Amino acid sequence: MSLFSLVQTKKYCGERLEICRDEVVREFPVTVFVNDEELATLVCTPDSLEELAAGFLYGEGILSGPGDLKNIKVNHQDGLVWVETATPVPAAGNFLKRYITTCCGKGRASFYFVNDARGIKPLETEGFKITLENIRSLMAALEARAGLFRSTGGAHGAALCSPEGIIAFYEDVGRHNAVDKVAGHCFLKGIPLSDKAVALTGRVSSEILIKAARMGVPMIISRSAPTDLALQLAGELGVTVAGFVRGNRVNLYTHPERVITHGCD
Amino acid sequence: MSLFSLVQTKKYCGERLEICRDEVVREFPVTVFVNDEELATLVCTPDSLEELAAGFLYGEGILSGPGDLKNIKVNHQDGLVWVETATPVPAAGNFLKRYITTCCGKGRASFYFVNDARGIKPLETEGFKITLENIRSLMAALEARAGLFRSTGGAHGAALCSPEGIIAFYEDVGRHNAVDKVAGHCFLKGIPLSDKAVALTGRVSSEILIKAARMGVPMIISRSAPTDLALQLAGELGVTVAGFVRGNRVNLYTHPERVITHGCD
Repeated sequence: MSLFSLVQTKKYCGERLEICRDEVVREFPVTVFVNDEELATLVCTPDSLEELAAGFLYGEGILSGPGDLKNIKVNHQDGLVWVETATPVPAAGNFLKRYITTCCGKGRASFYFVNDARGIKPLETEGFKITLENIRSLMAALEARAGLFRSTGGAHGAALCSPEGIIAFYEDVGRHNAVDKVAGHCFLKGIPLSDKAVALTGRVSSEILIKAARMGVPMIISRSAPTDLALQLAGELGVTVAGFVRGNRVNLYTHPERVITHGCD
Repeated sequence: MSLFSLVQTKKYCGERLEICRDEVVREFPVTVFVNDEELATLVCTPDSLEELAAGFLYGEGILSGPGDLKNIKVNHQDGLVWVETATPVPAAGNFLKRYITTCCGKGRASFYFVNDARGIKPLETEGFKITLENIRSLMAALEARAGLFRSTGGAHGAALCSPEGIIAFYEDVGRHNAVDKVAGHCFLKGIPLSDKAVALTGRVSSEILIKAARMGVPMIISRSAPTDLALQLAGELGVTVAGFVRGNRVNLYTHPERVITHGCD
């Protein structure tokens, strides 16, 4: 299934008009069923739907380890994913309540943190090391692979990385979906993550931070800005955040002890 | 309440290190109660919470006209908004179900459209006119006002516009929230919208398109890309979409008959 549509476009540049068929990113609804119960519809780029569904369910705590997944079946044409779990999961109604409120609903930042970040073990700050040059190279590699963004301007890229290079790369019209696809890839392949980073083109919001911390990834590398909530969580959960990685610029916000700077500082 | 936090940052540019306190966009959870029942928690930029709540509830179909709103009360400190409606609304449980699935859940684009776009009357394509120069000026004005984006790189701007200029402008860490604040402003002030446009810095997804069409706004002007689903809906619902409005570039995707091009074509 194509990841973009061709759409007739009138392009004006100053007084000049060019009429062309332009590549526009697809936005495709995919419904996820868990044990034959409809759980959620995700609007996404229609590829890697196994990874998307697994990563989404992992991020939501419905799948917590490889043993939880019995079977996953995708109908790409109609945008349907059926997931069978090894043991029963809470009813969709409970999930939905949790999902929409994102928190226990007291509307205070601390509760928001506690609920979504609960059960996430702070990461060891020893072990994983990366150089500034690695960080810049990974972002350059991510940008080089972001073909859907280049052709449509409407997609986010995310990658699982070792310090030396990209291990898996996904693009999606949704920033969260791109990271969910990475998480799903790791979940389905059983990839150890304590020595990996997630690189992404989009912003680092609290939700992205929580996804990465739940995966056990010690570092997030982004081309874009972080939010204050994401950085607060990153500090508490032991995640290194590098933002605004563009050209030779790198901003380190949290846990810079993992980054080897060869005496720059 | 400040819209950004100051965060200690190690900024590397090549080999050079600068340690500074950087402005990072705030991400603040706000819980909306309707008739004392908790409905949803939105993670947002903590300003214009009346507008945000009203726009969100309007977009979700819980408020459909000015007569539906009896009272709205905000506790800015704790991020709580209480909305009282003139007549009872469906239980939050039903709302949540609708919200999370975004559709009747058959996972097909047509169902997705039908459900979320249902009840939206296609707009008259006569009446509202705008020039290419107006479109460029509105985007320039929007960019000039996007102070939170300039200082943090982590916010989206959205504005209600006449062809001649910006009427109301909002920024938010969430793309949807920025548009919800514009919608809430119009809802609370009872502003007629058939001769207005919504301009935004972010992408035009189907959800943004549906919000605008539900408001009755005949045109969306964006600095960024549209999705194919948004354009399909825009075509059906009579909304003019201009995308990639940058400098002297304007891409017209749907219903270009509203745009006066002074014989460029």
